[in-house]
Amino acid sequence: MPCELCNADNEQILYENQHLRIILVEDSNYPGFCRVIWKQHIKEMTDLSPEDRQHLFDWVLRTEQALRTVLNPDKINLATLGNAVPHLHWHVIARFTDDAHFPSPIWAAPRRKAPRAAPEGLAQNLSRLLNAS
Amino acid sequence: MPCELCNADNEQILYENQHLRIILVEDSNYPGFCRVIWKQHIKEMTDLSPEDRQHLFDWVLRTEQALRTVLNPDKINLATLGNAVPHLHWHVIARFTDDAHFPSPIWAAPRRKAPRAAPEGLAQNLSRLLNAS
Repeated sequence: MPCELCNADNEQILYENQHLRIILVEDSNYPGFCRVIWKQHIKEMTDLSPEDRQHLFDWVLRTEQALRTVLNPDKINLATLGNAVPHLHWHVIARFTDDAHFPSPIWAAPRRKAPRAAPEGLAQNLSRLLNAS
Repeated sequence: MPCELCNADNEQILYENQHLRIILVEDSNYPGFCRVIWKQHIKEMTDLSPEDRQHLFDWVLRTEQALRTVLNPDKINLATLGNAVPHLHWHVIARFTDDAHFPSPIWAAPRRKAPRAAPEGLAQNLSRLLNAS
């Protein structure tokens, strides 16, 4: 089965370099949901060289910082799971106490209906911060 | 409300230094479930200094490596959420294709009953690897 992260299209890319890309995930409950995707088809963080581990995690934290600056969330959630798609990627999610799952993880059963509109210019602001960081 | 990670007891500590401790979580579905807990009551990764971020994440990956060496899991899951307990800690979880939730995250609805016995000497072997790493 072809890997959906090796063959992605229709992604809203906020930042990209030779090793990785950072996208804004389309999720009506979570406008501040980004994904940092390593370009090479690698499974685990410890499959990367020490330099590449640091490079990837540094961009995960730059994404966290950009989300904090733009959205001032109540919490940031970071996760790399990859059980369904074993191609290294990180979820970076801005959480709010009134969001659909809080305080549960977004993968648990929802606690309330809480669609959330993205603030105007969200993608542009995140992209500007990431490209300037 | 007192923080349960500042006031923890009954933890099975595998490794400890001045900044953090690594524990084996008691979970009958996930014997290979570790938690890396920053000792200071800090909320987000980006609240740490660059040196401390690197120190903490380095130990998260040493934990990943120890779990891979001892258990040879099908996947590693890493996450720092902290919505319920906003004291910086990482979940490092050895996943198997026949575990209770696979390929879902462990926070989703379980897919099957799959209690899993810990291999003999698990805690000792993880602790030995972490202390030698």
